[in-house]
Amino acid sequence: MASEILSREDLQAAYIRVQCYAEHTPLMTFPKLNEHFGAELWLKCEQFQPIGAFKIRGATNFILQMSEAERKKGVVTHSSGNHAQAVAYVCHHLGMPAYIVMPENSNKLKIRNAKGWGAEVRFCEPGTEPRLKMAQEVHEETGAMIMPSYDHPWIMGGQASCAMEIFREQNDFDYLLAPLGGGGLLSGSALSAHYFSAGTKVIGTEPTQASDGFEGFHSGERVEQAKANTIADGLRTTVGAFPFPVIQKHVDDIWLAEEAAIVQWMYRIWDWTKLIIEPSCAVPFAALDQQKEKMKGKKLAVIVTGGNVDFTELPAGDQMMS
Amino acid sequence: MASEILSREDLQAAYIRVQCYAEHTPLMTFPKLNEHFGAELWLKCEQFQPIGAFKIRGATNFILQMSEAERKKGVVTHSSGNHAQAVAYVCHHLGMPAYIVMPENSNKLKIRNAKGWGAEVRFCEPGTEPRLKMAQEVHEETGAMIMPSYDHPWIMGGQASCAMEIFREQNDFDYLLAPLGGGGLLSGSALSAHYFSAGTKVIGTEPTQASDGFEGFHSGERVEQAKANTIADGLRTTVGAFPFPVIQKHVDDIWLAEEAAIVQWMYRIWDWTKLIIEPSCAVPFAALDQQKEKMKGKKLAVIVTGGNVDFTELPAGDQMMS
Repeated sequence: MASEILSREDLQAAYIRVQCYAEHTPLMTFPKLNEHFGAELWLKCEQFQPIGAFKIRGATNFILQMSEAERKKGVVTHSSGNHAQAVAYVCHHLGMPAYIVMPENSNKLKIRNAKGWGAEVRFCEPGTEPRLKMAQEVHEETGAMIMPSYDHPWIMGGQASCAMEIFREQNDFDYLLAPLGGGGLLSGSALSAHYFSAGTKVIGTEPTQASDGFEGFHSGERVEQAKANTIADGLRTTVGAFPFPVIQKHVDDIWLAEEAAIVQWMYRIWDWTKLIIEPSCAVPFAALDQQKEKMKGKKLAVIVTGGNVDFTELPAGDQMMS
Repeated sequence: MASEILSREDLQAAYIRVQCYAEHTPLMTFPKLNEHFGAELWLKCEQFQPIGAFKIRGATNFILQMSEAERKKGVVTHSSGNHAQAVAYVCHHLGMPAYIVMPENSNKLKIRNAKGWGAEVRFCEPGTEPRLKMAQEVHEETGAMIMPSYDHPWIMGGQASCAMEIFREQNDFDYLLAPLGGGGLLSGSALSAHYFSAGTKVIGTEPTQASDGFEGFHSGERVEQAKANTIADGLRTTVGAFPFPVIQKHVDDIWLAEEAAIVQWMYRIWDWTKLIIEPSCAVPFAALDQQKEKMKGKKLAVIVTGGNVDFTELPAGDQMMS
């Protein structure tokens, strides 16, 4: 057995599986951003995935490792965000059942998106406990496999394919920046860099108001429960048990970003690149802005994780401009 | 002399000039759009130009045809939109003076953008007359050449390079759709198709609430003054004297789009493609949606003219969703 939870070969196999449903997204560079940071930035544009976010990678790698018998019974998951859409999308294309557990107070857009690819939505009371409980009930009723949204080696392996694509295209990055929520993407990126990069250092970036990853990284103890109050809705989760040790071992540093800067950078990226990014994707830019001096002249890859913005939940335009 | 205002060779020369400052922008296709329209759409993404819009093409072609002596004295223009930014950008890079006449009630964002590349902004009373008058005054004072924003063969020739890039990459489009404002882009595109395409038909698209082009096209008489009341701020101008006969001769049809559909399609394109487009760019999609049945199975190029959205002037997110 390899000393890592995922071997070089595991990642190579995941890379092939992921290609069934995920796009090889473009790396783009923008003079205005490079000028601002005094560095060379390349954005890995995961908002161009079929479901508008990188989550399709982990979902594909997970589902394609299930047995034929397991796939017949389907999967149940309790995310209401990009992971739910990813699961629904892959299941739709494989003709297998997908059950999504969502709190009954979820907004209409999220419910519509979850149903969009033919998934069956089951409503529960708000809160983590009721979600887990109903997922368990659906599992008992239907036999569908419970699928975590990040805390599983198959998910981590799938997300790793994003950084692998980056290194296949250009392998002279000094740093790779990724947002840190549950840690599936960051741990996968760090393993990718470990196996396949020419010495690229991986940095996690996290909202100050959801800094469990930062705290765990520095204390050496995973924070299992924490209050997150951030507009970066993809990063409100705490770091999972599987990603945690990988992040401890292979991530170079974790940088924080303040809320006001996250909102400002979302707007700036919209304006400067003409790409829609969701609030979570603004976190690496806001964090980098604090570390500008150290990064002068460096070449950086930034994973732009998705573009599924709920425009109804955004502050008004004039507030975004402030 | 050629029977057209711009010959094949004029367009080829413009194409070369334009490359000095404009990017060869990507053609992108999106499964969700293709599925909706039952057709194959390729978006020419001009929002990735350095100033976020196609106008840099005409400005470059114009300025690079001025004499050395003329360039020393600079140019004066009275657009407050993308054309002003384009002129400022090119002049900045050539180290020549640019004067932009703007109404004193222009919003701060537009003033900031106009000043962004070092142009000198002169404020006048609101209205067309005061703008023309002040441009004339600046010309008399400084000797700067007055530069129209669309009604000039050099501008038309520059804008033509956009469709030329499309045809160089793929030359089997049934239709090319472009928005119609002053007609610089549409007339240039139509000449491009005439000289360089394999029979691509060119369609102009216009807001119903700024339909001077549509009316002139069908009556055969150019509408010289008209009230425009549309969110598509780039298309409020009336068709120019130079573009008009080219459009009459080489454009296949003009389609209209209602205001509500324009707003809806701007939001949809943001959501479905993760690209920021400005309201004017939503017009071809809103118009196409009305002509869907006729276009089934066709291959279409759509010029996405720019992504300079003033977020402070947009309806709130929840209104855009309706």
